[in-house]
Amino acid sequence: MKKKKIAVLASGRGSNLQVIMDAIDAGYIETGEIRVVISDNRDAFALERARRNGIEHLWIDPSVYDTRREYDHAVAGELEKRQTDLVVLAGFMRILSPDFVRRFYGRIINIHPSLIPSFCGEGYYGGRVHRAVLDYGVRVSGATVHFVDEGTDTGPIILQQVVEVKQDDTVESLAERVLEVEHRLLPEAVKLFCQDRLRIEGRKVYISGDGAR
Amino acid sequence: MKKKKIAVLASGRGSNLQVIMDAIDAGYIETGEIRVVISDNRDAFALERARRNGIEHLWIDPSVYDTRREYDHAVAGELEKRQTDLVVLAGFMRILSPDFVRRFYGRIINIHPSLIPSFCGEGYYGGRVHRAVLDYGVRVSGATVHFVDEGTDTGPIILQQVVEVKQDDTVESLAERVLEVEHRLLPEAVKLFCQDRLRIEGRKVYISGDGAR
Repeated sequence: MKKKKIAVLASGRGSNLQVIMDAIDAGYIETGEIRVVISDNRDAFALERARRNGIEHLWIDPSVYDTRREYDHAVAGELEKRQTDLVVLAGFMRILSPDFVRRFYGRIINIHPSLIPSFCGEGYYGGRVHRAVLDYGVRVSGATVHFVDEGTDTGPIILQQVVEVKQDDTVESLAERVLEVEHRLLPEAVKLFCQDRLRIEGRKVYISGDGAR
Repeated sequence: MKKKKIAVLASGRGSNLQVIMDAIDAGYIETGEIRVVISDNRDAFALERARRNGIEHLWIDPSVYDTRREYDHAVAGELEKRQTDLVVLAGFMRILSPDFVRRFYGRIINIHPSLIPSFCGEGYYGGRVHRAVLDYGVRVSGATVHFVDEGTDTGPIILQQVVEVKQDDTVESLAERVLEVEHRLLPEAVKLFCQDRLRIEGRKVYISGDGAR
């Protein structure tokens, strides 16, 4: 099987990028390779991680572009030049324009640190998600990997896994356990995509050969 | 420990009532007894179950009362006459008035067939919950036992348990697996209440001696 070309978009330290690089190095993802890492933030450690692994990395400066749409157009151009099969949002702190999403629909995946549709949407990111989970008093939370559509955290769900919320959890302790799950789910979703095992039908994602997971 | 007096409100076949009766008979709930079963539906099989188990049962006819508030007032009167400690909603198909909820706040529990706050609130009951779960395409659902407040399915959460959603699930197959979980969670919540192990603080429910669960 021909290897899928993966682009990773990241704004921060890039721990999810690292997890994907590790999964490829370990042979867990056999049919994918990271072609490029793109960041909107010059100081993103994700860029440094790419450099250390000999992966092409681009800082595309948002201040050069007048609108989000123009910025996204520039990013899309770089992705298409490299014949990108899969775009992974790994802590990319910019909301993608509808044009961008339509252009790559079914090829962009994101991970969210809750059980969508709970505690997601506008304003729910990072520690705010876990704060809301704790304030609500739910007993379970988790992580969700999904295809990106034009809404915020509303796209078809690929994988979800549950994390128990403990009575004495803090934002930090809960975030830590959810992050462990994120680091398991994201490589799994990338692997499934790279094996051509994901099929979107309306809002649903069917996984073929699911027994083999 | 003095036994808690439990009232069960049910409109239908009363499978959750049966589960509580069984848990008491089996000695799983040692510090509670069902004092009365009340239904708004003369033909509710829940009333027949109560009769067979020698439990007092009342059909209180809603058509006799002009408003929901007056009906609830009548029900509340019967509950207080019997010094009810805990009101369990077991498939009770009427929304309780704010007056009723305030009068018994912290002493009314309900079970909902999803992971609140997903797939709950107005219009989400019975098979509609599972239909919405399947249409959304989530990978996990479950059941939630909570204290009842003035909102719909918004009260403090006592217990939640997860059920995996399978790719080939139908409303019926999912409902069946969630029901199994409901039948485990509800007696557990009743047991914890009857052992005085639940404490509400704002939106959160703390379970004392949680290690012993």
